[in-house]
Amino acid sequence: MGSRFGTLFSIVTFGESHGGAVGVVVDGCPARLALSEADIQVDLDRRRPGQSRLSTPRQEADRVSILSGVFEGLTLGTPIALMVANEDTKPQHYDEMRTVYRPSHADYTYDAKYGHRMWAGGGRSSARETIGRVAAGAIARKLLAERWGVEILGYVTQIGRICAEVDPEAVTRAAVETLPDGEPNAARCPDAEASARMFAAVDEARCAGDSLGGIVGCVARGVPAGWGEPVFDKLEADLAKAMMSIPASKGFEIGSGFAGAAQHGSEHNDTFYVDEQQRVRTRTNRSGGVQGGISNGEAVVMRVGFKPTATIRSQQETVTTEHEPAVLAARGRHDPCVVPRAVPVVEAMCALVLVDHALRQTAQAGAHGD
Amino acid sequence: MGSRFGTLFSIVTFGESHGGAVGVVVDGCPARLALSEADIQVDLDRRRPGQSRLSTPRQEADRVSILSGVFEGLTLGTPIALMVANEDTKPQHYDEMRTVYRPSHADYTYDAKYGHRMWAGGGRSSARETIGRVAAGAIARKLLAERWGVEILGYVTQIGRICAEVDPEAVTRAAVETLPDGEPNAARCPDAEASARMFAAVDEARCAGDSLGGIVGCVARGVPAGWGEPVFDKLEADLAKAMMSIPASKGFEIGSGFAGAAQHGSEHNDTFYVDEQQRVRTRTNRSGGVQGGISNGEAVVMRVGFKPTATIRSQQETVTTEHEPAVLAARGRHDPCVVPRAVPVVEAMCALVLVDHALRQTAQAGAHGD
Amino acid sequence: MGSRFGTLFSIVTFGESHGGAVGVVVDGCPARLALSEADIQVDLDRRRPGQSRLSTPRQEADRVSILSGVFEGLTLGTPIALMVANEDTKPQHYDEMRTVYRPSHADYTYDAKYGHRMWAGGGRSSARETIGRVAAGAIARKLLAERWGVEILGYVTQIGRICAEVDPEAVTRAAVETLPDGEPNAARCPDAEASARMFAAVDEARCAGDSLGGIVGCVARGVPAGWGEPVFDKLEADLAKAMMSIPASKGFEIGSGFAGAAQHGSEHNDTFYVDEQQRVRTRTNRSGGVQGGISNGEAVVMRVGFKPTATIRSQQETVTTEHEPAVLAARGRHDPCVVPRAVPVVEAMCALVLVDHALRQTAQAGAHGD
Amino acid sequence: MGSRFGTLFSIVTFGESHGGAVGVVVDGCPARLALSEADIQVDLDRRRPGQSRLSTPRQEADRVSILSGVFEGLTLGTPIALMVANEDTKPQHYDEMRTVYRPSHADYTYDAKYGHRMWAGGGRSSARETIGRVAAGAIARKLLAERWGVEILGYVTQIGRICAEVDPEAVTRAAVETLPDGEPNAARCPDAEASARMFAAVDEARCAGDSLGGIVGCVARGVPAGWGEPVFDKLEADLAKAMMSIPASKGFEIGSGFAGAAQHGSEHNDTFYVDEQQRVRTRTNRSGGVQGGISNGEAVVMRVGFKPTATIRSQQETVTTEHEPAVLAARGRHDPCVVPRAVPVVEAMCALVLVDHALRQTAQAGAHGD
Repeated sequence: MGSRFGTLFSIVTFGESHGGAVGVVVDGCPARLALSEADIQVDLDRRRPGQSRLSTPRQEADRVSILSGVFEGLTLGTPIALMVANEDTKPQHYDEMRTVYRPSHADYTYDAKYGHRMWAGGGRSSARETIGRVAAGAIARKLLAERWGVEILGYVTQIGRICAEVDPEAVTRAAVETLPDGEPNAARCPDAEASARMFAAVDEARCAGDSLGGIVGCVARGVPAGWGEPVFDKLEADLAKAMMSIPASKGFEIGSGFAGAAQHGSEHNDTFYVDEQQRVRTRTNRSGGVQGGISNGEAVVMRVGFKPTATIRSQQETVTTEHEPAVLAARGRHDPCVVPRAVPVVEAMCALVLVDHALRQTAQAGAHGD
Repeated sequence: MGSRFGTLFSIVTFGESHGGAVGVVVDGCPARLALSEADIQVDLDRRRPGQSRLSTPRQEADRVSILSGVFEGLTLGTPIALMVANEDTKPQHYDEMRTVYRPSHADYTYDAKYGHRMWAGGGRSSARETIGRVAAGAIARKLLAERWGVEILGYVTQIGRICAEVDPEAVTRAAVETLPDGEPNAARCPDAEASARMFAAVDEARCAGDSLGGIVGCVARGVPAGWGEPVFDKLEADLAKAMMSIPASKGFEIGSGFAGAAQHGSEHNDTFYVDEQQRVRTRTNRSGGVQGGISNGEAVVMRVGFKPTATIRSQQETVTTEHEPAVLAARGRHDPCVVPRAVPVVEAMCALVLVDHALRQTAQAGAHGD
Repeated sequence: MGSRFGTLFSIVTFGESHGGAVGVVVDGCPARLALSEADIQVDLDRRRPGQSRLSTPRQEADRVSILSGVFEGLTLGTPIALMVANEDTKPQHYDEMRTVYRPSHADYTYDAKYGHRMWAGGGRSSARETIGRVAAGAIARKLLAERWGVEILGYVTQIGRICAEVDPEAVTRAAVETLPDGEPNAARCPDAEASARMFAAVDEARCAGDSLGGIVGCVARGVPAGWGEPVFDKLEADLAKAMMSIPASKGFEIGSGFAGAAQHGSEHNDTFYVDEQQRVRTRTNRSGGVQGGISNGEAVVMRVGFKPTATIRSQQETVTTEHEPAVLAARGRHDPCVVPRAVPVVEAMCALVLVDHALRQTAQAGAHGD
Repeated sequence: MGSRFGTLFSIVTFGESHGGAVGVVVDGCPARLALSEADIQVDLDRRRPGQSRLSTPRQEADRVSILSGVFEGLTLGTPIALMVANEDTKPQHYDEMRTVYRPSHADYTYDAKYGHRMWAGGGRSSARETIGRVAAGAIARKLLAERWGVEILGYVTQIGRICAEVDPEAVTRAAVETLPDGEPNAARCPDAEASARMFAAVDEARCAGDSLGGIVGCVARGVPAGWGEPVFDKLEADLAKAMMSIPASKGFEIGSGFAGAAQHGSEHNDTFYVDEQQRVRTRTNRSGGVQGGISNGEAVVMRVGFKPTATIRSQQETVTTEHEPAVLAARGRHDPCVVPRAVPVVEAMCALVLVDHALRQTAQAGAHGD
């Protein structure tokens, strides 16, 4: 249970770190969207490990196949099944995890819940599970862009203690992905100076057999007013669930977030005005583009906090599956910092929430004649 | 849409600030739970306005009626409908809201979404909507306590710039609700000294026609290991959605939250040990009781950030429904700080998430013979 | 569980035969539909007992109240809660049901499932539960009529062994509700001659302390091509579930139904032609307006079989709740034939399925630009 | 949309007749069920075409692969993805379907709904879609058998005008699958004499380029009392939806079905008695094992009517996609009678409904301490 997400644009992901494959079935994508494997591969490549020293050296091509739902280059309106084969698995690297619980990892809780666990590589709790999310998110993002002109962009604002100021209205994909010198921006922080310091900090942690956490920001620009539902399915509530379902996330903020808690209403409120196109706008955006759970036409701005990777090479006290004390120093290939690779995952989850609410609002507005 | 929450213990809330009634239908509460209106009223009384100067002087008894689902003092296993009549409504206090959008309120977004809006008192976006949540949460909490021994406790840790340290393992209901001198703890902060300063700060904001935000912490003690689902329905993801669906919430954290983002893995990881009852335990609880989306048997600890109340008496620039500039100084009865009254709402949402996962895990574990 | 129906136009019914009230919450009705209690009452009056000798003499006004979701005569887009108070209850008439299971009724299975049962009047298994369906169905029907021009009409085609031929393309509401002499058509069979014989047959069963079953037909005219989903949510599958969820139903057919099983493909296939408006039509309608789970623009035609009422005054062998043999002759007020009163319930369930698929198709078609 | 089924034991099927693969993802199967590809293959082999002259000569091995969710021979509690590659496709056989709508097939409605259609072999409306159902049903059936001792058995009771009497309490898998002489029972009718006549009738239809419909019966033995939910998710309602979602089904009956509509209550009611094991039993089973939507411990007995295959070699009037008149005589490989191959599909859908309700009841009963 629990591997399904979305009401109208609905996905189910499947797959463990080891075993046949990982993937996703998307049910509810409207017909006649132009779609090829290349549209999806581009985001999978951004998520893929081995892109720099910042991430695990595990090398996997992660080539996606469309198994169904597309015909003559257009979606059919039927389920789109996407699959990525597992390869390059070295289960021997995980031998000790068979009998020893990694601190702050899901080994113990999976055993407590299921009484049976794929110990190699984390099984279902592995970051490989996010392949299905990113693949489905690529479709969602394409539909949002083509049909509603929505653009979604994620970026790193903090790694460890190194923070960057990023303007969500102005940040570009180019600045996130590429450094001024044309090199890949391994830290995915659009502030190049901060990015360099982040890179160094992660490298230091890696050498020390340690890991670092960080914060990913995400903005959706071009969201029209009226998406989201009052009460439980507020746009920010569904975004919060989406983000807090990403492995290692520990916090979520929309707009002013926790900082808003320290303000007075007279400081915090976003005053309205009417712009030149006669649209109702706000002069500030502490609301983060959402009021009462419904988008107000401003940029939807959020932040997601990630803890440091749990699997580290340093020695840690722990216990065995037989409840005996043990000391663990993980071998295998582990990300010293998952945060840059989390950027496409955050974008994908944002896209999946938005496209679902876009369809829900289309149903309602269309039905009363708008 | 969007007024439903939960998979097995499922609720639908209804009602606007003005109109016949607000309420909730609970579908999925197991049979034979002892339940009376008094069990529910106690939490509604904690949520009710007019308890102190900190909240709106609007006086409503908010008496709950059980319309169905209970017979001879026990639940039937069928839907439990709960209703609270609306009374003491003074729509004339809201006249200006008919044509003027309150900044950072839901007036504009509701119009953008629906093209029709109950302007009096916020309609569906009013805090009165949370009555249904609190009523349903009281049932969830009772089931959790009786069947699994789970205790849920919310408390205020910050109002404006005044913060308190609260130990989630040790905090008591008594300290949250009552001051050392026996008076009601209007701020619901268990640190009495901080509570007094919070009270003063809110009073000052009230006199200035302004408002304040704050932070509510919440702990669930006694949750067994194994609740929550991997991937999308992680316990922390469902808690995040639950909390971010509460009006005025802007941020959610589980365990270490955003602070964890600044740490190294070697600092952040919760090392395992085996306690005297041979239970696997962690020496620290930065995970917040959840690992890989599944409870690990430690206290589940979370925090929710609330923005300052949007409706204030101070003058604000805004626009009319006809897109003309306007200046608004709200009349009517408004909470200068919603945070203390949010405590029972946070508890209710926590209870609703936990009871749903308790039932989901009961289905799975029972089916494989545990 | 199980009291919820629909994906986008979603309802939850509540209430037992005795207790405070029965009702429904409709979540997902689009905003700005003109709606008053009178729109709903008209269908409740058709469902109400005591309309003729054919049904129970239980006299209840069954006046509906709109508790939420409507403002200034228009729906708000928020949940519409509808309530009908229970009255005229004579629990003493049901005393023996406390300890004796009625054959073919739900008394035993409710005890087996829940271990606790409202024995008076059938509790949740009472036909009073259908009040919520009919109330919600009235809203669905109004939206279907106003927005898409869909008309839904139910009628009785069989009671006991008396059958009538009814042409679903031509039948009128007037012929179903009124006899040629202007009297109410108590049997709701549009064939007046058959209707008279049905009336006599039910009256005979009533006098004998017995009961009769029958068949209700239903047609939806004006459904555009394209509603319904392939695979599990086929239009006929959702209609089947809807109809088989009505108390006492035992069978469902779409189009040719079981008779089609005896035919050759060359006889059964509906050949296509193009009509004067250049619409693709079929010359026959054995498909019942649905092909591959999706409406084809022809009338959607279905039939629902109902067993005879289980509660009869004749003596029957049975057992007690203590598993002792017993003989039961039910007292109280029971319908000798539920079939005429089932007509508005069948119509309501048909409307609820269609409006949900109308909204689902609006979402998809709108999203690819149609 | 619409390719998902089930609440707790939930499946999503995917795949068209042509394209990469067909398959299913099962989310919600409890952990630690022994499962191998062989457990699933056995049912797929029964569904496979080419088993006799009664079905299409299309030859496909339909070998299933488990992509995820199973480790060391036991389910993990995580999604189980199952895939069958498409092969032996001869799209040239379907050329005329590109531009000509087959009468009573889904070609036209898919175009009306989606504006884009995989014309080769029916695409998503092909019977190949049922591979995913049968594969998932095999898992459901294994869990039902091992955990609750439930046995599910389908059989043919009618093809064309040839009917057989089958006793659902006594029928055996052996009689359904094998003739007294040891040959495969191609018609899957346990009455060998009727089976022979059915075989001859289908063969005659095949030679004539025509097709035949029929009826499949199904019984679930060993279902405990208490499964199913009141109101909308009645066991018979969910079974009805399940069966009416199978391609070509036109009718569903539980227990007495439409025949019950002609009876008096005194004839139809199932009188209770207490058996030697002190279990409450009924002397007859016109209820079909279900009362008030909840199983009563008797055999659950149902019937499903199938229309004759729409695609036939005889000439038929129709129209083109350009709305021009046309005459169609289908080439390609088509089942002259789908009914025998529908038996494992009916069993699978029955198993999927029952296992879902088993888990739902486990959740509720476990939660109130049973």
